[in-house]
Amino acid sequence: MSLLVVGTVAFDAIETPFGKTDKIIGGAATYISLAASFFYKPVNLVSVVGDDFPADTLADLERRGVDLKGLQVRKGEKSFFWAGKYGADLNTRTTLATDLNVLASFKPEIPEAYRKPDYLMLGNLVPDIQFEVLEQLKHKPRLIVMDTMNYWLESAREAVLRNLRHIDVLMVNDEEARLLSGEYSLVKAARVIMGMGPDFLIIKKGEHGALLFHGQDVFFAPALPLEEVFDPTGAGDTFAGGFLGYLAATRDVSFENMKSAVIYGSAMASFVVERFGPERLISVKKDEIRQRCRSFLELVQVDINLG
Amino acid sequence: MSLLVVGTVAFDAIETPFGKTDKIIGGAATYISLAASFFYKPVNLVSVVGDDFPADTLADLERRGVDLKGLQVRKGEKSFFWAGKYGADLNTRTTLATDLNVLASFKPEIPEAYRKPDYLMLGNLVPDIQFEVLEQLKHKPRLIVMDTMNYWLESAREAVLRNLRHIDVLMVNDEEARLLSGEYSLVKAARVIMGMGPDFLIIKKGEHGALLFHGQDVFFAPALPLEEVFDPTGAGDTFAGGFLGYLAATRDVSFENMKSAVIYGSAMASFVVERFGPERLISVKKDEIRQRCRSFLELVQVDINLG
Repeated sequence: MSLLVVGTVAFDAIETPFGKTDKIIGGAATYISLAASFFYKPVNLVSVVGDDFPADTLADLERRGVDLKGLQVRKGEKSFFWAGKYGADLNTRTTLATDLNVLASFKPEIPEAYRKPDYLMLGNLVPDIQFEVLEQLKHKPRLIVMDTMNYWLESAREAVLRNLRHIDVLMVNDEEARLLSGEYSLVKAARVIMGMGPDFLIIKKGEHGALLFHGQDVFFAPALPLEEVFDPTGAGDTFAGGFLGYLAATRDVSFENMKSAVIYGSAMASFVVERFGPERLISVKKDEIRQRCRSFLELVQVDINLG
Repeated sequence: MSLLVVGTVAFDAIETPFGKTDKIIGGAATYISLAASFFYKPVNLVSVVGDDFPADTLADLERRGVDLKGLQVRKGEKSFFWAGKYGADLNTRTTLATDLNVLASFKPEIPEAYRKPDYLMLGNLVPDIQFEVLEQLKHKPRLIVMDTMNYWLESAREAVLRNLRHIDVLMVNDEEARLLSGEYSLVKAARVIMGMGPDFLIIKKGEHGALLFHGQDVFFAPALPLEEVFDPTGAGDTFAGGFLGYLAATRDVSFENMKSAVIYGSAMASFVVERFGPERLISVKKDEIRQRCRSFLELVQVDINLG
């Protein structure tokens, strides 16, 4: 059994209506791996950083069960850096800086020992790089989950469409689902996207929850109405990590079990937004995760008389 | 036992991305009464129309159990008319015409027989007119539900605040909850608004569902992901009518029962958006309502292992 995560490990500088950070730890694969490690270990990570990336962060990831054999550390180069600013409603965000640095020449090299993953998460990356990962695999994983973003849907649509033919679960937000499918209704969008390849589609709606589609079935997980959303950065990746980590831990990729995985993913995401970056995520206790999942269930719990 | 609805009965002309209507039947109280009548009869209606309002529509309302003793029909005058156009995503709407006509001089006159309602719905109206209704009551109803809109929150805030001290349930959308409370977080907004008077707050989020707040408790009802949303006009009022009709029918205004009422209201609203105006609503069968409620429950149904 193994779980492989490919994606960015980076620095972020974030501005929200509530405050501002200097460079802090970020990157899709960082959030995915951290969240997954609460459920399943080891998490095999493939990514790239410069030698400016803090050794103690890497040591902490290892302590948490993230295997770093697949992490390239490039001497004399700088890690990927992203800076962004969120609007007053936290739903809009402006990119202030994207310094690709090591990412510009990133070629994923999957270590020999990682080439037969059972569970694979392709974090948001250049679609061609995501595909290079698939080409290095020695067997078909039980489940491949892929994330992408509107930028690739617009600039590399054909590459995204090719990837879709090889994956099992696509995870996008509502805007991206509409862009990819050309349909406004999410029900129609889901049908079109599942026709492109993936058997499952997860549409993330941020503060409005998430939808899981499979064939004719739909499951909806609400988002908890939170007192404070401090910083949405990493919420989608944390959701993905919790989702896949739970599936790997339970070794069950049925629609029924994916519903539970969506709740666990939502619970993990509801923590990460409470503070800047991964700060809150790394302090989460297993009991808190269970308690948060219970809150999700209670939120929609109703004893209705259907006469 | 009695149920009183006060609000507009009107003509609408609607343009959506899917088509366009000439003058059709509209008005908040029309939708509220129609939806409520599926659960409880009679629905005592207080409103005003001109003599241009179709007699067969009035006869149909009566057949459905809507009592029209409180409906003023003004000779030689025209009914309230609203024309609007929805944007491509159906979330934005532009008002093309608002001809107040009979509404300009509307003074609600609650018939003697209606003055001791157990359940009262104050549809969206000038806040001072809503208050005039309260002044004519001979006892405090078991439950007063009030709707309002951003226009009144901006132009008649003091009057809205006065009304809030006299009602039990406020029903607004998320934008209005934020405007009224000055808080972006809906959890904080709910606390502020309940501090203004109402014991219960319902925040309607359209295609993203609805939240019911009471003290420290929260309930979330998802919206069904619909294949087609044809015309959102009347969705909020239909929700309100289903909600209050169900409460009146079950004579139980506890938070627990309100959760069921929110599901019934959501089910009714999910029908009305399928066609223009009240066309789909008036054709709904009781079995379809139960089936739709079941779909709501199934949508969030998960059998999760919390370890």
